[in-house]
Amino acid sequence: MAIDSLVNHQVRLAQRPVGAPTRENWTFTSEPVQEPASGGVLIKTLSLSLDPAMRGWMNDAKSYIPPVGIGEVMRAGGVGKVIASQNPKFAIGDLVSAGLGVQEYLLVAEDQIKRNGVFKINPQLGSISQWLNVLGMPGMTGYFGLLDIGQPKPGETVVVSGAAGAVGQTVGQLARIKGCRVVGIAGGRAKCDWVVNELGFDACIDYKAGNVKAALKEHCPKGVDIYFDNVGGDILDDVLARLARGARIIICGAISQYNNTTPVQGPKNYLSLLVNRARMEGMVVFDYADRFPVAVAELSGYLKDGRMRSREDVVQGLDTFPEALVKLFTGGNFGKLVLQVADA
Amino acid sequence: MAIDSLVNHQVRLAQRPVGAPTRENWTFTSEPVQEPASGGVLIKTLSLSLDPAMRGWMNDAKSYIPPVGIGEVMRAGGVGKVIASQNPKFAIGDLVSAGLGVQEYLLVAEDQIKRNGVFKINPQLGSISQWLNVLGMPGMTGYFGLLDIGQPKPGETVVVSGAAGAVGQTVGQLARIKGCRVVGIAGGRAKCDWVVNELGFDACIDYKAGNVKAALKEHCPKGVDIYFDNVGGDILDDVLARLARGARIIICGAISQYNNTTPVQGPKNYLSLLVNRARMEGMVVFDYADRFPVAVAELSGYLKDGRMRSREDVVQGLDTFPEALVKLFTGGNFGKLVLQVADA
Repeated sequence: MAIDSLVNHQVRLAQRPVGAPTRENWTFTSEPVQEPASGGVLIKTLSLSLDPAMRGWMNDAKSYIPPVGIGEVMRAGGVGKVIASQNPKFAIGDLVSAGLGVQEYLLVAEDQIKRNGVFKINPQLGSISQWLNVLGMPGMTGYFGLLDIGQPKPGETVVVSGAAGAVGQTVGQLARIKGCRVVGIAGGRAKCDWVVNELGFDACIDYKAGNVKAALKEHCPKGVDIYFDNVGGDILDDVLARLARGARIIICGAISQYNNTTPVQGPKNYLSLLVNRARMEGMVVFDYADRFPVAVAELSGYLKDGRMRSREDVVQGLDTFPEALVKLFTGGNFGKLVLQVADA
Repeated sequence: MAIDSLVNHQVRLAQRPVGAPTRENWTFTSEPVQEPASGGVLIKTLSLSLDPAMRGWMNDAKSYIPPVGIGEVMRAGGVGKVIASQNPKFAIGDLVSAGLGVQEYLLVAEDQIKRNGVFKINPQLGSISQWLNVLGMPGMTGYFGLLDIGQPKPGETVVVSGAAGAVGQTVGQLARIKGCRVVGIAGGRAKCDWVVNELGFDACIDYKAGNVKAALKEHCPKGVDIYFDNVGGDILDDVLARLARGARIIICGAISQYNNTTPVQGPKNYLSLLVNRARMEGMVVFDYADRFPVAVAELSGYLKDGRMRSREDVVQGLDTFPEALVKLFTGGNFGKLVLQVADA
């Protein structure tokens, strides 16, 4: 099909949400697709990564990255296929990871290739969904957060919240491989069972079933050496109350707080850091970009040899984006949430 | 005077306070003084250190040290003089630092010398009050917290709350010596002026005068690289909102929260740690005991050569202990709070 007959359907931010995002926050647009100029590439979106961080990008607030502007295509990372190229580094048919946005096509000028994070991916190392999960940003976040910030030692107890999510499944399995005792926290029996039975966690606490504090005491008899926090809120406080001496908390996110219309709930047990000579440290995955290839090589090796598994929750179609995104905040997804926009 | 004619007046914990401690929480007792047995020493209390941490020791809660039991002599560190000794390491007239308790005399058996932290101090290195301040626990806290946890680099901006207090004055002056820009936070014009004019801080924010957030923006144009937190509460949140990338927060205490009858106020801006790849870490000074002599040597050098000054707020008499302690929580003290029990 000729490029100039293609139409690019897009999802743009129409208004900033108050609380949970709704369909009214989005507008659906379309525009013609253009051929790349010299040095440029045209990428067809295959699958997009839906992430909790998206909620933050919708707010007009200072953060590690500027907010998405009103009227702009919503920011999203994803995997696409090169369908036209005027750049010798990219051939038609190449699979690439890129900041595609929530749209069907992305035209990237030569001087925007780096800014859009476009790089070729090797389909031999994992499926497209895995490239958005263990081999993608969530996997990189888990890898560098756990290893660089957490510095796990064999025999230590690692707790990870959002255990069945994209970051959580990477963190937990990697911590097991590094010789740690791993306790997940997830919502619902099904996720907990999967995390223990399929991923090999030592235990998983169902926070929807009740007393997280008591369960932490049961499953972490020697205290928590590393807590990888994806959720914030009450669970962060419960873990703070259970820290071992010299503990490390990796602040990766706070999904429980992202839709708040009231101020963020600060961890009232933070003085446990003092009592236990413990540390709470934030991280942003982009800082580790130059080491992603090393992490991908290690993690794809674990996927190949069966020491790691992955699970993705794949939702179909660009027009389902608004409802799909909300699943993240209700815990409606089971595994890494992926929006499949087109077949490979 | 014969030892057996001496009377030891004591202040004991009668009941645990709810909120701010009052005179009703204490009971005043007396008992005869006894001669030391073989290996033991008898110490006469000269001056006691009054510290915010004392409030925590009065609570029946798990911490880095057991609470003071009901009916027990209140825990306190201080400087005393050996007045009887059956131990070759201590001679009559030696000045010692020790966990004396709020009482006039402490009899220490040989096997309790280490547990009570009894060590000889050199009056050449500083006055008795300085041995409770820059050369004592507050100074050690400031020294190891700033240098080991904070790891200051020349040109960085260091903020310290409780700036005119014992820990704060050490931290700020030491940070200046290490080449940092230093901004204090203290209560009232007089303390702020002293910190800037006498101690050489670059600026000091009077939190009682109003907008700490705006003042931080003014005085920390490049953000806050190190925050040494003695107070917690709203000020911690204000500093979190002003962190520079890679910032380090030393959690030393939270005096604003110690008398709370409601839960501790958690830092609602803690996600600034994520955005700024920053760290919040707790410390307990006792962990550094084997390195105290090194710190004392360095700090006493600065006191001698005039690069550091110290200020103590000396209150007289054991029976004023209840009211003196409360000054810490109202900001009523100006400088390190010392209770002088007897003349040297």
